[in-house]
Amino acid sequence: MGDERTESDLRVVGMAPYRWGDPAHPVALPEAAAAALVHLGVKPPEHEPVAPERIALTPPALPAAARAALEAAVGAEQVDDSDAARIGPDVVVSPGSHDEVVAVLKACAEHRIAVVPYAGGTSVVGGLAPVREGFAAVVMLDVRRLDRLTALDEVSRTATLEAGLRGPAAESLLAERGYTLGHFPQSYEGASIGGYAATRSSGQSSAGYGRFDEMVVGLVLATPRGTVELGRAPRSAAGPDLRQLVLGSEGAFGVITSVVVRIRPRPAVRVYEGWRFASFDAGLAAVRRLAQDGPLPTVLRLADEAETAINLADPDVLSGASGGCLATCGFEGTGAEIPVRRSAVAEVLRAAGGEALGEGPGEVWREGRYRAPYLRDPLLDAGALVETLETAAFWACVPALKAAVTEALTTSLAGQGTPPLVLCHVSHVYETGASLYFTVVCAQTADPVAQWRTAKAAATAAIGAAGGTITHHHAVGTDHRDAYVTEVGPLAIEALQAVKRTFDPAGVLNPGILLPVRPAAG
Amino acid sequence: MGDERTESDLRVVGMAPYRWGDPAHPVALPEAAAAALVHLGVKPPEHEPVAPERIALTPPALPAAARAALEAAVGAEQVDDSDAARIGPDVVVSPGSHDEVVAVLKACAEHRIAVVPYAGGTSVVGGLAPVREGFAAVVMLDVRRLDRLTALDEVSRTATLEAGLRGPAAESLLAERGYTLGHFPQSYEGASIGGYAATRSSGQSSAGYGRFDEMVVGLVLATPRGTVELGRAPRSAAGPDLRQLVLGSEGAFGVITSVVVRIRPRPAVRVYEGWRFASFDAGLAAVRRLAQDGPLPTVLRLADEAETAINLADPDVLSGASGGCLATCGFEGTGAEIPVRRSAVAEVLRAAGGEALGEGPGEVWREGRYRAPYLRDPLLDAGALVETLETAAFWACVPALKAAVTEALTTSLAGQGTPPLVLCHVSHVYETGASLYFTVVCAQTADPVAQWRTAKAAATAAIGAAGGTITHHHAVGTDHRDAYVTEVGPLAIEALQAVKRTFDPAGVLNPGILLPVRPAAG
Repeated sequence: MGDERTESDLRVVGMAPYRWGDPAHPVALPEAAAAALVHLGVKPPEHEPVAPERIALTPPALPAAARAALEAAVGAEQVDDSDAARIGPDVVVSPGSHDEVVAVLKACAEHRIAVVPYAGGTSVVGGLAPVREGFAAVVMLDVRRLDRLTALDEVSRTATLEAGLRGPAAESLLAERGYTLGHFPQSYEGASIGGYAATRSSGQSSAGYGRFDEMVVGLVLATPRGTVELGRAPRSAAGPDLRQLVLGSEGAFGVITSVVVRIRPRPAVRVYEGWRFASFDAGLAAVRRLAQDGPLPTVLRLADEAETAINLADPDVLSGASGGCLATCGFEGTGAEIPVRRSAVAEVLRAAGGEALGEGPGEVWREGRYRAPYLRDPLLDAGALVETLETAAFWACVPALKAAVTEALTTSLAGQGTPPLVLCHVSHVYETGASLYFTVVCAQTADPVAQWRTAKAAATAAIGAAGGTITHHHAVGTDHRDAYVTEVGPLAIEALQAVKRTFDPAGVLNPGILLPVRPAAG
Repeated sequence: MGDERTESDLRVVGMAPYRWGDPAHPVALPEAAAAALVHLGVKPPEHEPVAPERIALTPPALPAAARAALEAAVGAEQVDDSDAARIGPDVVVSPGSHDEVVAVLKACAEHRIAVVPYAGGTSVVGGLAPVREGFAAVVMLDVRRLDRLTALDEVSRTATLEAGLRGPAAESLLAERGYTLGHFPQSYEGASIGGYAATRSSGQSSAGYGRFDEMVVGLVLATPRGTVELGRAPRSAAGPDLRQLVLGSEGAFGVITSVVVRIRPRPAVRVYEGWRFASFDAGLAAVRRLAQDGPLPTVLRLADEAETAINLADPDVLSGASGGCLATCGFEGTGAEIPVRRSAVAEVLRAAGGEALGEGPGEVWREGRYRAPYLRDPLLDAGALVETLETAAFWACVPALKAAVTEALTTSLAGQGTPPLVLCHVSHVYETGASLYFTVVCAQTADPVAQWRTAKAAATAAIGAAGGTITHHHAVGTDHRDAYVTEVGPLAIEALQAVKRTFDPAGVLNPGILLPVRPAAG
């Protein structure tokens, strides 16, 4: 039985700067992967990476008056402009309450200081890289001191969680009371409650627990103009659902300081199993059937042939079998309910041509569920280019979308002399559609940043043409900003900029994240 | 088995002006109700209601240039300023396509003509009563010619429905293909797809099918500045969910001309049954248990003691039993799945103290599911004041909210010399809370409008103090505008006004509906 790593030693995972995850648990490149890299023409890098402590920083740009205002807001000891703290920003400010966050935002607006909210630091889309031109300085607003469970309502099954709580700490606090949030994205060890909310995170148990934006029933937003508090009831017909305007706003409208989330009893049983399908199309039909007609497992994932082959290279996953596609089903719940749901799901999967592989592959998935991103660093160390991207679409578009993105990545990278390995899986399902998650590995060219930018642009164009959204759960950040404008259209972007101007007239909140920078009104 | 009234004769129900529902099926006041009115001191009115044809109308205020612009947009035959058409507006304009809607909105913005979108006309909160001061004229934009099912995707299980389709017509078109939307509000016979979307409607089968805002995966909005098209995927992390900004916007941001909705296979079986609980609290615990731990029926309602007593006065509902509270459970689905779910629900309800009453009370509910509002007119004819209001809250607040609203209504109306009968039921449930629907009947005073305004203000204050939302599914309109501002706060209202100014710089869209009127930018 997995315990979702709520142990106290995981409460504060120190994310190493510029490397993923808990440095106490590094992941080495599997031998099979190292061998595969040779086939892709990957060669070790010529230069060592630059150690953070060797980076020469310019003196902090924070004006003295601004510093005094920030110290007045949170106390001098919570305003840190040491070199260690501020690779990137000019100063790190750590408020300890919602009111202090509002005070910091007011001070920053007054002194034209850009503000980057920070807690988990797990953005993969440039969500922490604001525009700095036109601002006196950049403040990293570290909300990790907002780390409390401030209310738990057992009748309504809701909990009020502060924004700076990271995944394991939140689960740990809820577990003490017998509850779970059920939100386990791959970034779970480092990502925060505020980040989940600001980016519309989706976890690996989304089939059973839903997306984070579906869990939130209330929230408090700190803005330079004051506080917005939303969520009087689970659902309302009192105008637009403003919670859904704040969720996904990526720090551009304000700082989410706490959320009220739906909680569920901590499951007594967690069991994960593997299923094999002859082809991705067959597997897709099976998971669609479950998503549309039920019953749904708590976890439901489907790897394509290429990703399955990589998984199968791990002898723990599956010995003897070859080819096809691996689906992972997980069941979490009370003891009595699980066997009924599990056998009903099995009936559907078997009728759809699935072959039961038992709990072995499921346990391997569970053991490694947060480990895949750790492979990025040893792969980069080995000289490989490795990237991921994801999208979602209605079911009818999914097969063509998958083919188009794979083709775009392959053509672009092969054209640059670095033919890639492109892996894909379905990570989240809905009645009307599903997400697709792609992993790309190839040799680096002399300019790997430009190399990936070219390939990503090709993938982005393919997603747009094939009817997908630019991101299913990674958010917009700076990487997807142009594609986002194309996706929702200029009039909708103007409306969002009008909302931003209302909450943030000086335009200091995460400038350039989510929305293009416009002349500020303030 | 109910057929949800998809027969062709219901495709176009002519709603009589100022009376509810299909005039071909009027409802007479039951004898028991007439007797109860005597106890409340209700006396027949002294004056006959004014027949609409006897109302003297001023000539239409539409300037000639504006009329020419509207005729250019939709054709002269679709611009109607006859007296019959325009009790209220100056002219009725009936576009036949999304592009014509955009053209009408541009013409109205240019000529400073207020626009009221119209299709079903079933608003009970003043949603069709805009401010007319400051405008050259008021146009009723009748979207009933937008009445097509334009796409049905059986793989994704989505349908594209135009805004002017009313409930039965939409169901009829889907039924031809074997599908259902599953949205059956009490206003089903008259209300439209566009109205469902613009007001966040919730139907009687919400436990099984969800709210309308949960069914919508895409939409097209016509604004004076052009078109906004939203919904590339079921879910996305690309910024705020802008669909949820348009849903519930009540015509203030634009006119929703079509929606893409999730559809489901038409159920083979529909069965409804009654359960009796000793008290409302016992019933509430039972329905909360189903909402939080499952399984959920498709329909789940719980009447309080007072409402149950009124129902029990109908000999068809329940003979022999007395007191307690009536819960109604409905099951709609495939033949195989229903008995399993039904017996699992029965087990929970029995364990919670419920007494099974069989299908009799369920069938009575089904027969009358759209009839209750029809009683308004015979009650008014008899001289009674009858009104309804509804709210929602988290479970922990529900008992105190119910008591507070009942107390506020009773105290206010008794204080005016007209002690009321206050009935209440739970009409919609969620994991974290539920809705409460109140019906109030009493004698009229000499000024029944002021009488109800006073009582409603007391109920509104009670809802606010007890933690409820001002409306769960009736929307804001003009009636709830002030309470809405209080509920979400002035900063959020400013943000919505900024969105409105973006889409509607001249401020012509439904002025005074949802949002307070502000000086327009255009």
